[in-house]
Amino acid sequence: MLIEIPNTKKARVVIIGGGFGGIQLAKMFKNKDVQVVIVDKNNYHTFQPLMYQVATSALEAESIAYPIRKIFNKSKNIFFRLGEVTHIDAEKKMIEFGNDTLEYDYLVIASGAKTNYFGNEGLTISAMPMKSILESLDLRTMLLQNFEHALLINNERKKQGMMNVVIAGAGPTGVELAGALGELKRSVFPKDYPELDLGKMNIYLVQSGDRVLPMLSPKSSLKAKKYLEKLGVTVVLNTRVLDYFGDYVQTDTGQDIIAKTLIWTAGVTGNPIKGMPKETIGRGDRIQVDEFNQVKGLQDVFAIGDVACMVQKDWPNGHPQVAPGAMQQGKLLGKNLVGKICYNKPYKPFKYKDKGAMATVGKNKALVEMGRLKIGGAVAWFIWMVIHLLSLVGFRNKVVTMFNWVKNYFNSDRGMRLIITQFDLQEEKRKRRKEFEAKHTVK
Amino acid sequence: MLIEIPNTKKARVVIIGGGFGGIQLAKMFKNKDVQVVIVDKNNYHTFQPLMYQVATSALEAESIAYPIRKIFNKSKNIFFRLGEVTHIDAEKKMIEFGNDTLEYDYLVIASGAKTNYFGNEGLTISAMPMKSILESLDLRTMLLQNFEHALLINNERKKQGMMNVVIAGAGPTGVELAGALGELKRSVFPKDYPELDLGKMNIYLVQSGDRVLPMLSPKSSLKAKKYLEKLGVTVVLNTRVLDYFGDYVQTDTGQDIIAKTLIWTAGVTGNPIKGMPKETIGRGDRIQVDEFNQVKGLQDVFAIGDVACMVQKDWPNGHPQVAPGAMQQGKLLGKNLVGKICYNKPYKPFKYKDKGAMATVGKNKALVEMGRLKIGGAVAWFIWMVIHLLSLVGFRNKVVTMFNWVKNYFNSDRGMRLIITQFDLQEEKRKRRKEFEAKHTVK
Repeated sequence: MLIEIPNTKKARVVIIGGGFGGIQLAKMFKNKDVQVVIVDKNNYHTFQPLMYQVATSALEAESIAYPIRKIFNKSKNIFFRLGEVTHIDAEKKMIEFGNDTLEYDYLVIASGAKTNYFGNEGLTISAMPMKSILESLDLRTMLLQNFEHALLINNERKKQGMMNVVIAGAGPTGVELAGALGELKRSVFPKDYPELDLGKMNIYLVQSGDRVLPMLSPKSSLKAKKYLEKLGVTVVLNTRVLDYFGDYVQTDTGQDIIAKTLIWTAGVTGNPIKGMPKETIGRGDRIQVDEFNQVKGLQDVFAIGDVACMVQKDWPNGHPQVAPGAMQQGKLLGKNLVGKICYNKPYKPFKYKDKGAMATVGKNKALVEMGRLKIGGAVAWFIWMVIHLLSLVGFRNKVVTMFNWVKNYFNSDRGMRLIITQFDLQEEKRKRRKEFEAKHTVK
Repeated sequence: MLIEIPNTKKARVVIIGGGFGGIQLAKMFKNKDVQVVIVDKNNYHTFQPLMYQVATSALEAESIAYPIRKIFNKSKNIFFRLGEVTHIDAEKKMIEFGNDTLEYDYLVIASGAKTNYFGNEGLTISAMPMKSILESLDLRTMLLQNFEHALLINNERKKQGMMNVVIAGAGPTGVELAGALGELKRSVFPKDYPELDLGKMNIYLVQSGDRVLPMLSPKSSLKAKKYLEKLGVTVVLNTRVLDYFGDYVQTDTGQDIIAKTLIWTAGVTGNPIKGMPKETIGRGDRIQVDEFNQVKGLQDVFAIGDVACMVQKDWPNGHPQVAPGAMQQGKLLGKNLVGKICYNKPYKPFKYKDKGAMATVGKNKALVEMGRLKIGGAVAWFIWMVIHLLSLVGFRNKVVTMFNWVKNYFNSDRGMRLIITQFDLQEEKRKRRKEFEAKHTVK
C-alpha cells in the first residue's frame, strides 16, 4: 500500500506484465483520470521476436530491451513497480509481490507464456529455453563455450557432440535460430575456429509435424525447408524429442542425436498467477476469458495476450499466441476500461485481426504471409526487417539494430560473440543431473 | 598439448591475458615465424576505461568488449584458448589451465591487476568491485535495484540508505563513476522516480589523501573537485574507509555514512599466477622484472603491464598501472622476442613514455594533462572523448559508442538502465554476511 491514489483519480488499474499486451494497454491510459500501476519482474520491456539474434551473437541484449519507466516518463498517472507477482486475491481485490501487497479496482493479467517441457524432467534440467534476455545470453554463452571446449578435447566423438546443436520445434523461433546458427557455421566459425572441422558441426531442426512453420501455407513451409537446407541445417520431420540428459537427444524414431546443446522451442504454456480459481484456467494453462477479456467468474479481473484464451468463432482454441494479438487486446481493453471508468460506457467485444505471419531464415531468405500476399526470398526478408525495426521500442534501439544488421549484411560477421554471463551451464547442469539421478536411483 | 607447433615455426610464445598489454604484444607476432597462444578467462578484450559507463547505464556491455579471436582472425600463427591459468611450472616450461597443460618456449604474464581490499573481510564481502564486465553489469543491477526497492520501503532512514552511494578512492575510476552518478541523479532519476525525493540521494566520494585525482597537478585536482560538487557529489577528503557490512560505511574520522552501496576503487594489486617463486613477487603483488620485462631469476619468463613492476630511474615503485604503459611494454617485448627468435638479436631495454593522464567528470567537464598541456572543461572533455573513441577496438564499437554519446549529450538520458544480471546482490551479500558472522561470533 505504498502508492496512494490521489483524490482526483477515479480508480486504480493494476497490470501484471510489461510485455506487448501490458505496455499497449497502459499506453491507452496516458493522461486519463485513472491511476495505472504496472508490475513486472524486469524493469524493461523485452522485444521477444529478436531474442534469437542475441543468442546467436548478432545483437546486444540492450538493443531488444527498453526501460518501462522510460516509456511512461511523461505520464504522471502511470506507475511502475519491480517484482514478481506471487498471488492474486480476487476477493480482497489485492495482489502480492515480494513482501508487498497492492490493492486494485481493476486487474489485468498480462503475464505472457513460459516454456513448456510437458512435465519431462530430463528436458527441464538439460534443455536450453529462450524466453528471456538472460536465457538468450546464457544460450550465447553455452554455444560459444562448447566451441572453446571442443578445442580442448581429443576424443573425436565428444568433440562432435560439443559442436552439434539440436533445436526442437520448427515454429518461427526454432526456424530463425536454426537459420542464424547456419550462418554462424558458414561465415563466422570457420574464421574463428580454423582448428576445428566445421563440416562436423551439425544443426538439427526436429519437428513433430510434417512441415516447418505450420502456421504458414504448405508452399511457404517447403520454401523455408529449402532455405534451411541451403544453410546447412538438417531438417528432421515427423520426429518427436522424447528425452535428453545433456549428452544425446532421444527421439521417437529410435534415432539418437549426439549433442551437448538442445534448444527447446517446442512448446509454451500460459503463465497464470497463483490464487486464480482452478476453473478459470483452461487448456495449456491459459486463463479463460470472454469477449471483453474478462476472466470467467471473476469481477473486474481481465487477462490479455499469451496468457489469455478467448474462444471465438474461427478460434476454438483461442487466438494465436503472438504479439499483434496481445497488442490488439491491450488496445481494446484500454479503451473499454477508460470508457467505463471515466464515462460509464459499456464494454465493446474483441475482434481479432489476423495480421499474418512471417519468419526469417537467413540473409535474403524469409517468408511473409499477409492476407493474400504470400512471398519468400529477398523481398520478404526486406519486409521482415522493416517491420521488426519499426516495431522495436526506442529510437536508439532502432538505430543500433539497423547499424548492426547493415554491418552484418556486408561482412557476414557477428560481432557479439562474447561470453558475458558467468553461468557455467555444463557444471550447473551436471550438478543438477547428479541430484536428479541420486533421487531416482532405485536403492 | 592439443596445439602442435608446425615444423615451420621456430618457437611457441604463450601469453597469459588478453588485456591492453597482451593484445599489443600478440599483434607484434602477426605473420612472423613464431607460434603464439593467448590464454584468457574471457573470450574478449575488455576496454576497461569505459566500464564505469556500463555500470551507470550509458553504454552496452557489448560496446566495450571485443572478441579476441576476431582480432587475430587473419593471423594463422596466433591461437587462442579460453581458460584461467592456475599454475606456472617454470622448470618444465609449462602452464596449467582448467584440466589442460600447455608447454611454452617463452612465457609472458600479462594477467593485469585485481581489486585490493587490503585483507579486510567486511569490504571483501560487502563492497562492490568494478574490474570486469560482469562486475560492471552487477553494479548497474545493484544501483537500479536499490532505487526500485527504495520505492517499496516506508522507513525513511532505510529509504535514504538505498539511495545513497559511497565511492572509496578518487582516482580516475572513482571520479568518473561519481560524476556519472551525479548526472544520473540530476537528469535521469528525477524523471524515472518522481515519487522519490532525489534531494535525499547523496553521492560521497571518499579519498584518503587531500585531493582527488592525485596523478594530476593540484590545480587540476581542484578543478575536478569543483566539477564534482557542481554535479552534486560530496567530496570527502583526508578520510579513510575502515569497514563496511552492507549498511553503513565506517570511516577513520568517526563519521559513518548510511549507504546500501559502497563501490571500491581504492586499490588494486597485481594478479600473479600460482607457481611463481616467492622472491619474484614484490610490493603490491607485482612481479619484479628487469628492463627487458624478464622476470627476475626465471629463464624465458616475462611479465608486462599492471602485473609487472619495473624499477627504473624516476620510477622507484615501478611505472603507473595504466593502459599506455602496458601497451608500450607489449610492443617492445614483441619486437625483442621476434628479434631474438627470428634473427638472434639482443633485447633492447624499455623506456617509459609518460603519456599524461586524463579523467572526465561529466558533460563538458574533464581534465587532461599531456606534457605541458594542462586543461580542463569542454575542450578537455572533447579530447577525452576522441581519444577514448579512437582507442576502442572495433569499428562497430566505435560507431555505437559515438551514437550513444551524441544521443546522451543532447537528451541527457541513459538508455541502458536495464537490470539484466540476475545476481540479487542484497540476498547474496546478506547470506555471505550471515556466514561471516556465524564464523566470527564468540561462543
